[in-house]
Amino acid sequence: MDAIKSGWFSEVSEMWPGQCMSLEVEEVLHKEKSKYQDILVFKSKTYGNVLVLDGVIQCTERDEFSYQEMLAHLPLCSHKNPRKVLIIGGGDGGVAREVLKHPTVEEVHMCEIDETVIEVSKKYLPKMACSFSDSKLKLHIMDGFEFMGLHKGEFDVIITDSSDPIGPASSLFEKKYYELMKSALKPGGIVCSQGECMWVHLDLIKSMLEFCKSIYSTVSYAYTTIPTYPCGQIGFLICSLDAGLDFENPPRPLHEEDVERLNLKYYNNDMHKSSFKLPEFARKALHKSCVSNGL
Amino acid sequence: MDAIKSGWFSEVSEMWPGQCMSLEVEEVLHKEKSKYQDILVFKSKTYGNVLVLDGVIQCTERDEFSYQEMLAHLPLCSHKNPRKVLIIGGGDGGVAREVLKHPTVEEVHMCEIDETVIEVSKKYLPKMACSFSDSKLKLHIMDGFEFMGLHKGEFDVIITDSSDPIGPASSLFEKKYYELMKSALKPGGIVCSQGECMWVHLDLIKSMLEFCKSIYSTVSYAYTTIPTYPCGQIGFLICSLDAGLDFENPPRPLHEEDVERLNLKYYNNDMHKSSFKLPEFARKALHKSCVSNGL
Repeated sequence: MDAIKSGWFSEVSEMWPGQCMSLEVEEVLHKEKSKYQDILVFKSKTYGNVLVLDGVIQCTERDEFSYQEMLAHLPLCSHKNPRKVLIIGGGDGGVAREVLKHPTVEEVHMCEIDETVIEVSKKYLPKMACSFSDSKLKLHIMDGFEFMGLHKGEFDVIITDSSDPIGPASSLFEKKYYELMKSALKPGGIVCSQGECMWVHLDLIKSMLEFCKSIYSTVSYAYTTIPTYPCGQIGFLICSLDAGLDFENPPRPLHEEDVERLNLKYYNNDMHKSSFKLPEFARKALHKSCVSNGL
Repeated sequence: MDAIKSGWFSEVSEMWPGQCMSLEVEEVLHKEKSKYQDILVFKSKTYGNVLVLDGVIQCTERDEFSYQEMLAHLPLCSHKNPRKVLIIGGGDGGVAREVLKHPTVEEVHMCEIDETVIEVSKKYLPKMACSFSDSKLKLHIMDGFEFMGLHKGEFDVIITDSSDPIGPASSLFEKKYYELMKSALKPGGIVCSQGECMWVHLDLIKSMLEFCKSIYSTVSYAYTTIPTYPCGQIGFLICSLDAGLDFENPPRPLHEEDVERLNLKYYNNDMHKSSFKLPEFARKALHKSCVSNGL
């Protein structure tokens, strides 16, 4: 946690060698070593409050909406009637905030292993952690594997809002995790997970798509742009048990007035569709690994 | 030019306050103060050779293709028969390389004010500066304003590959520059310019779109993702004298086999179309400033 030097926080990591994003720090608000990870919150000069776990930027108040909205609405608009949703991770509350905007949703279960992230977010990221008192939200402080083992065939949508595949979240990028999610889904269910960046982790994404193809009927990769993630973007793995589903033409598209009413700042139906369109180098590499999507 | 510290180059600038991209340096290859700007070339650890002008990253060998391909093929595929093309700036040669891939193109004029950028690029960025010996390319070492004043109604497409609106390129973001480009176009001509990033310069983009609307029949904004530009993306202002043109459905779309043949790594027809689809915050802000595009 010595990543702050001369008033700047720098995100150096072997996960993106040779490159580094830095944010200017106005004030360190919180530093703590929880049971699972190093937690840092600082007030940045131009990106609002910033949450950092194990040295990696998780979200900033200025650009969080692009990740949270896409991770939530890509699967929810792709499901015909999402009533029961499970969020694995997501301790900052941003994804829950977005999921609860859907009137069909009756129950949201969040399974976060590190309670400290939630407490810190409630205090320093109130615009994200605004839904923990919502009666539809059931919070479970436990391991996602364990939770899903106890809840078979229960969920319409499972969203994995995880950190990167180093540290506490590493098992969330493995085949057995995707098998476990499948077992926790209802028929026709959809999973959507943080899926890393095509500019630095194309091989990892390819191998994940490959094993997902052996588990799910429909598998695809979408991405969003976000200034404070490495290379300015992050992807999503999205899979469905429904073979007939076309993620690019979701069954419940949001119209312009919905987007306005739900106070969305990034997601709209055009962004939903175009998020599946990949630059040629990525399309070529991932092409055969995506199914039912014309990718 | 003291931006290299402890083996990292950092791109600190008041144009993107509070944030900074850094690249790890393997070796400084060239440092020079030309008549117009500070020029630095270094070999980076993971992005190949990097060209820096006045402290700002212009291109890296690893990700340059996304910018060069989009800046060239967006306007060229949108023109029915682009034969004579003018490039303002573009001294690294990357845009010329892409423009010359179009068989309709008979003549490319490049007007670069700083000859040193070309010489340095030929030496250290040979994969970009590969077209200076092409017989279709006519190089003019002079000011773009002056050149266009002498060449009225001559070009089908004018591409402005400039640095940011501080220093030698600042006048390229003003209304009179867009008026001058119009006067240098043939009927039905198209201009496409580096158009800054919607996450940091939304107001500038909005005002540029507004004045372009008073000059051109069709005006739009597209963007590309690119890890080494601020926020991981950069936009393009694209304008046409043809009122009936729909940039999102270009008259000469590239098919999969064209993309393969032209050795494109970023651009394909899906990326062309989706590059005009904007996140909700930008769509709302720029909506009324774009015309003839359903934006």
